Amino acid sequence: MNVLTTRLTEKFGLKYPVFSAPMAFASGGKLAAAVTNAGGLGLIGGAYGDQQWIENEFQAAGNIGVGCGVITWAMKDKPEVVDQILDHKPKALFLSFGDPKDFIEKAHKKDVPVICQVQTFKDAKHAIHCGAEVIVAQGAEAGGHGESRSTFTLVPEVADYICGNAPETLLCAAGGIADGRGLAAALMLGADGVLIGSRFWASEEAIVHSKMLDAALVASGDETIRSSVMDIARRLNWPERYTARVLKNGFTHQWHHDLDGLLENQDEQADLWRAAWQEGNTDVANTFVGEAAGLINSIEPAAKILTSIADEAERLLGRK
Amino acid sequence: MNVLTTRLTEKFGLKYPVFSAPMAFASGGKLAAAVTNAGGLGLIGGAYGDQQWIENEFQAAGNIGVGCGVITWAMKDKPEVVDQILDHKPKALFLSFGDPKDFIEKAHKKDVPVICQVQTFKDAKHAIHCGAEVIVAQGAEAGGHGESRSTFTLVPEVADYICGNAPETLLCAAGGIADGRGLAAALMLGADGVLIGSRFWASEEAIVHSKMLDAALVASGDETIRSSVMDIARRLNWPERYTARVLKNGFTHQWHHDLDGLLENQDEQADLWRAAWQEGNTDVANTFVGEAAGLINSIEPAAKILTSIADEAERLLGRK
Repeated sequence: MNVLTTRLTEKFGLKYPVFSAPMAFASGGKLAAAVTNAGGLGLIGGAYGDQQWIENEFQAAGNIGVGCGVITWAMKDKPEVVDQILDHKPKALFLSFGDPKDFIEKAHKKDVPVICQVQTFKDAKHAIHCGAEVIVAQGAEAGGHGESRSTFTLVPEVADYICGNAPETLLCAAGGIADGRGLAAALMLGADGVLIGSRFWASEEAIVHSKMLDAALVASGDETIRSSVMDIARRLNWPERYTARVLKNGFTHQWHHDLDGLLENQDEQADLWRAAWQEGNTDVANTFVGEAAGLINSIEPAAKILTSIADEAERLLGRK
Repeated sequence: MNVLTTRLTEKFGLKYPVFSAPMAFASGGKLAAAVTNAGGLGLIGGAYGDQQWIENEFQAAGNIGVGCGVITWAMKDKPEVVDQILDHKPKALFLSFGDPKDFIEKAHKKDVPVICQVQTFKDAKHAIHCGAEVIVAQGAEAGGHGESRSTFTLVPEVADYICGNAPETLLCAAGGIADGRGLAAALMLGADGVLIGSRFWASEEAIVHSKMLDAALVASGDETIRSSVMDIARRLNWPERYTARVLKNGFTHQWHHDLDGLLENQDEQADLWRAAWQEGNTDVANTFVGEAAGLINSIEPAAKILTSIADEAERLLGRK
């Protein structure tokens, strides 16, 4: 048996125990389909629930089986988006950042398995007891939204709980995994597989401004920061506990320690940030990438990224 | 060859690629000697440089080869402490939290190898170019002082730099490693070994108040926080970039978001905190432990901890 054959590959019929993260705006149908085609499971980033965008991206994925993720708290006022996604018969519904309970029930009624991403041990226990088939334990090193626990301790702590309380639940590690070393390490920590964001963000299929990719390629993980300034600039009502990891830039330098000042100038700064995002002006708009930026040196096709990761992990685990 | 035989075990003549962390106040000679006796390398926690304490603990270690660590910035005004340590012919001098350059030169003049713990990629490069024999890449999940980068990404980023620029330098992972899963994962990420703090803090030989151990045993990693409040309460002039991970308690709840208020009440609060530390009152004095608290369920002799970690890692890596 191949060393990368795990409970996760068996459950979802995959060649490799790898999900691509449903990154808001970046993970379209093309990326998700490429990851699924190459042997993982690709997830479309349904994000805040733009129904037309989601429709377009399921079309872009074609007839390839993919999953779709949403930001849970943003679905509270538009549960119809979850119904829309479930109507596409996705391989899985992915939920993160909010109480998943009601949406898990909704998905199970349509026989769609649920992947719940959590950032704390407490939330992991809740998601397990709500019946999620897969828990993704996401560490603070991840790009985009998250919290403060680290992958290295959150994964084994959740693994122990699953072992003792819900042995049928599967576990993935997320946050900081960008190569075969990370996949091999995650399996050692007790995960059945991994969810990879930043490395697929830096793929040919992701929807990312080229100037943001350029900025990430030369950055060390030192040059990232968890902040709320970009959510304030975008007028997104993220619960306070969640921050987002981005590349530090002039905008974070100016406002990270002055959130009150940013709120006072929100109209002006929001316009500046939005315009900069369109232009790929990385000194104002923030590049959403994790600490793994320091491990990423090239933009590659998603299939090549996935097979490189798998090959390296197999070699490290001594079976190739 | 045993799977736990690495460049680190060869360099220091160890059975296992494991250092015990030189934790201030907790890592005395008894713990360091127990770790060395069991096949790792034990490090005395020289901390802020109390010369009598250091003398006593080298005596307590007996004729067993151990190393000794200090807080680098605190040695700036008392370099004689480093001379005192070097006179004991330690197996290694361990430096963390400050520019190691001058002390590395001092150690090398006496043929003592140097282990430099760093918290950022930038500092890793500096320590490598200063000639440290071993770099310890410490992630934010660690207990006690540290910064914000995570073990999962810092280790491979430094490993890549070493590979390309200083292949003779050795690398250890620190932060979040408390069992064989962590050791195996660290080796997968590219480390030659690990530095373990919290798990040895919860050993029979460590110098820790029993009430603090009790508090840690029941805590999840969720219940830890990085803060500066205990350094303000102790009147220690830590550079702002370093915070310490401790168990959340009434004291962090009251002051973590009100450092100015704490400074205004420093005299009174310092007295309260110090008294609570002596009594083991964990609602005021903070318990210094990492996110790995969620993986620690018992107090054991250090030798048993070390052999359990090694056995589990060997089993996971498929050679036992």
